[in-house]
Amino acid sequence: MSRGRLIVFEGPEGAGKTTQLGLLAAWLTSRGIDHVRVREPGGTALGDEARRLLLDTPGGLDPRAEALLFMASRAALVAAVIAPALERGTLVLADRYFLSTYAYQIAGRGLPESEVRSANALATAGVSPDLTLLFAVPAPERAARAAARGLPDRIERAGDAFHGRVERAFAMFLSPNWQAAHPEAGPVRPIDGGGDAESVFARVRAALGERWPDLAMAGAPAAPAPGRR
Amino acid sequence: MSRGRLIVFEGPEGAGKTTQLGLLAAWLTSRGIDHVRVREPGGTALGDEARRLLLDTPGGLDPRAEALLFMASRAALVAAVIAPALERGTLVLADRYFLSTYAYQIAGRGLPESEVRSANALATAGVSPDLTLLFAVPAPERAARAAARGLPDRIERAGDAFHGRVERAFAMFLSPNWQAAHPEAGPVRPIDGGGDAESVFARVRAALGERWPDLAMAGAPAAPAPGRR
Repeated sequence: MSRGRLIVFEGPEGAGKTTQLGLLAAWLTSRGIDHVRVREPGGTALGDEARRLLLDTPGGLDPRAEALLFMASRAALVAAVIAPALERGTLVLADRYFLSTYAYQIAGRGLPESEVRSANALATAGVSPDLTLLFAVPAPERAARAAARGLPDRIERAGDAFHGRVERAFAMFLSPNWQAAHPEAGPVRPIDGGGDAESVFARVRAALGERWPDLAMAGAPAAPAPGRR
Repeated sequence: MSRGRLIVFEGPEGAGKTTQLGLLAAWLTSRGIDHVRVREPGGTALGDEARRLLLDTPGGLDPRAEALLFMASRAALVAAVIAPALERGTLVLADRYFLSTYAYQIAGRGLPESEVRSANALATAGVSPDLTLLFAVPAPERAARAAARGLPDRIERAGDAFHGRVERAFAMFLSPNWQAAHPEAGPVRPIDGGGDAESVFARVRAALGERWPDLAMAGAPAAPAPGRR
């Protein structure tokens, strides 16, 4: 590949983003394709501290502070990891990026869209996704998956009305009108996240192959090292 | 006082902001006037962690992450301390607020003004200063004061060109044109910070009295408690 590509995995909790990102990373590795995995918040000293503060601050964070802390973490991750990887031609797989901010902080918390988008533009410095895979899973199946993961964190505890707004926002991101008005988001493709992980991963590979035929064909499972007798 | 007032102390390093804020706080205490002191970054769990990250991150923070972390800290401080104090009618004395962001991050680091201003609007939620006292001290006197305080921190190490841009920005904030274009800043008054602390404090009291005659006259030194024979 002549240049890097940023592939973002988005969707509500329990939609299978992280599992699918792991399967794609393993698939790329088996084909000898260099890639970098990142998750938000995290990946830098600031990001790790932000994750701790966001998930565990007693009494909760003010929604504006929460949004800005996510964006500070994003700015550090873009500068230290994402932008350098893209510049050296590497594929970057991101577990959430700014569509999560748009869903959770604008739609969920009700923060002003124009201010959040501007702050996000400051954070990303123009680094937009080349492709976002937006995972959707029927609500009962997703709730069962989330419950199986154990205790909800602070964000997951925010209640059903909040999560309803977040889900409707993610669905809205698929509309052509929304995408035309938010060019920073880049192309967003829906992935049906229902069913077993291998079935979902077949859909992920199909979506990637549709966007980048060379990536679908790239390489082949690495041959076993020559044996010695 | 029927409502709170936010008085911000601004200016470059070594201009005497913190000393003067302490003198004003003592003066208010001696007159029985309730007040709250805040400094940026700090004053909340997020703010204290932000201060540590901003001053001591090895290798330095990306300028965009730095700006957003300052604003996350500001949002937390506004929500947890400043806005509640103003609502209950208390005087708030702030050691730096967003003019420092405008000077250090926009003018100093060269970040885009519109994005930083929008992010700041998100952080402050409309809480603007009722009065900003902008301290200026001739450069040689200020450098001597800063040196007397010991080793410079990461921001202070950023170099003379950077500090030149910061100083010119602070001077620009006094121009009527700049203030008209930035209504969020509220009124900004220059304070000559040269000379001994008591002389400067006389100028501070004069500026406050000009803006709020009731404050200049308010109360009197608390009488000693009645003695018992």
